[in-house]
Amino acid sequence: MADKAVPDIVVGRLPIYLRALTYLKADNREITSSQELGDRLGISSAQIRKDLSHFGEFGKQGTGYDIAHLERNLKAILHVDRMWDVVLVGAGDLGHALAAYRGFAGRGFRIAAVFDKDPAKIGKPIGNDLVIEDVATLADRVREQGWQIAIIAVPADQAQLVANTLVQAGIRAILNYAPITLMCPSGVRVEQIDPAAHLQHLTYYLG
Amino acid sequence: MADKAVPDIVVGRLPIYLRALTYLKADNREITSSQELGDRLGISSAQIRKDLSHFGEFGKQGTGYDIAHLERNLKAILHVDRMWDVVLVGAGDLGHALAAYRGFAGRGFRIAAVFDKDPAKIGKPIGNDLVIEDVATLADRVREQGWQIAIIAVPADQAQLVANTLVQAGIRAILNYAPITLMCPSGVRVEQIDPAAHLQHLTYYLG
Repeated sequence: MADKAVPDIVVGRLPIYLRALTYLKADNREITSSQELGDRLGISSAQIRKDLSHFGEFGKQGTGYDIAHLERNLKAILHVDRMWDVVLVGAGDLGHALAAYRGFAGRGFRIAAVFDKDPAKIGKPIGNDLVIEDVATLADRVREQGWQIAIIAVPADQAQLVANTLVQAGIRAILNYAPITLMCPSGVRVEQIDPAAHLQHLTYYLG
Repeated sequence: MADKAVPDIVVGRLPIYLRALTYLKADNREITSSQELGDRLGISSAQIRKDLSHFGEFGKQGTGYDIAHLERNLKAILHVDRMWDVVLVGAGDLGHALAAYRGFAGRGFRIAAVFDKDPAKIGKPIGNDLVIEDVATLADRVREQGWQIAIIAVPADQAQLVANTLVQAGIRAILNYAPITLMCPSGVRVEQIDPAAHLQHLTYYLG
């Protein structure tokens, strides 16, 4: 179903559509339209129809989208119709916030392990039911468990080294919170959380 | 210069272009091309040229973009050729991480104040040179200082209430870390940090 030729920029919008559908479903809604989704998301309805058309026919002219059906399809397209283990590296303030974050539930992810290099943190509980592990064991643990996804929440000057270790151990997808651009081989996907970029998006609209 | 008709989705890419230009400049580069930017960012060169064309003529056919010139222009377009004060609400793990975050420097923002409702936290130092303030004083402080931008880093069940307070006090732009969709009046812009959406973008490419 997933056409490899779909532009990455389109792929990046699918989770936003999925999130909106999930909210509508929670409101007991059954049908929506590209117009309604677009109004909620600040994206044109034409763009939404074009984006979704890469993956099949989901709506009928005049009747709109079946919310549950489209949600199910988007989950399958994004491969979140299953649960993914995520490795978290860094147990500072941000790592603690992420280990306790409630926004992963129901969206396909769980933090499976947390690593840090600080001896004072290793062995301490974190999140609901995890214990901070020694980053020295990170590569072996990733290989043993076959983990594919990692979140980097270490200081900027350590992030590239952590990324190198993760990639060598088999990680294929990284969500990076450190304010640097990671260099990774082409088979590895990286997304960056960049709050300054979001703030700049907002200040465009301020005088 | 800022054409109000520019699609929001285009505006959202400008900070990403700006970030890439800043990295290139740090590498002592002077000229780049839509092709090089596109390769770095996973966006087609045609898209980049089209996005930038909303704001003027920045490159010449065959000679590419002057990095410093384009960077300066993007900063002006995004209104980050100045420094913005940002109010941070929530001094939990995430709030502490944000107050100490080094990724705002040089990008137009500084955390000007941090608020929390926990009496045990109020008055305690946070970040480099701030003291946690009582959220009961939030509205008055926002009005007094004329702050326009806020970051919400409180638990999901408190985020809407905080947003209401901020908006009533005059905040016009909110970066929301809580995993809920905030309801705000149409004059107020909201961006959401949604790590699960980024992870879903990544899992699209995992089998």
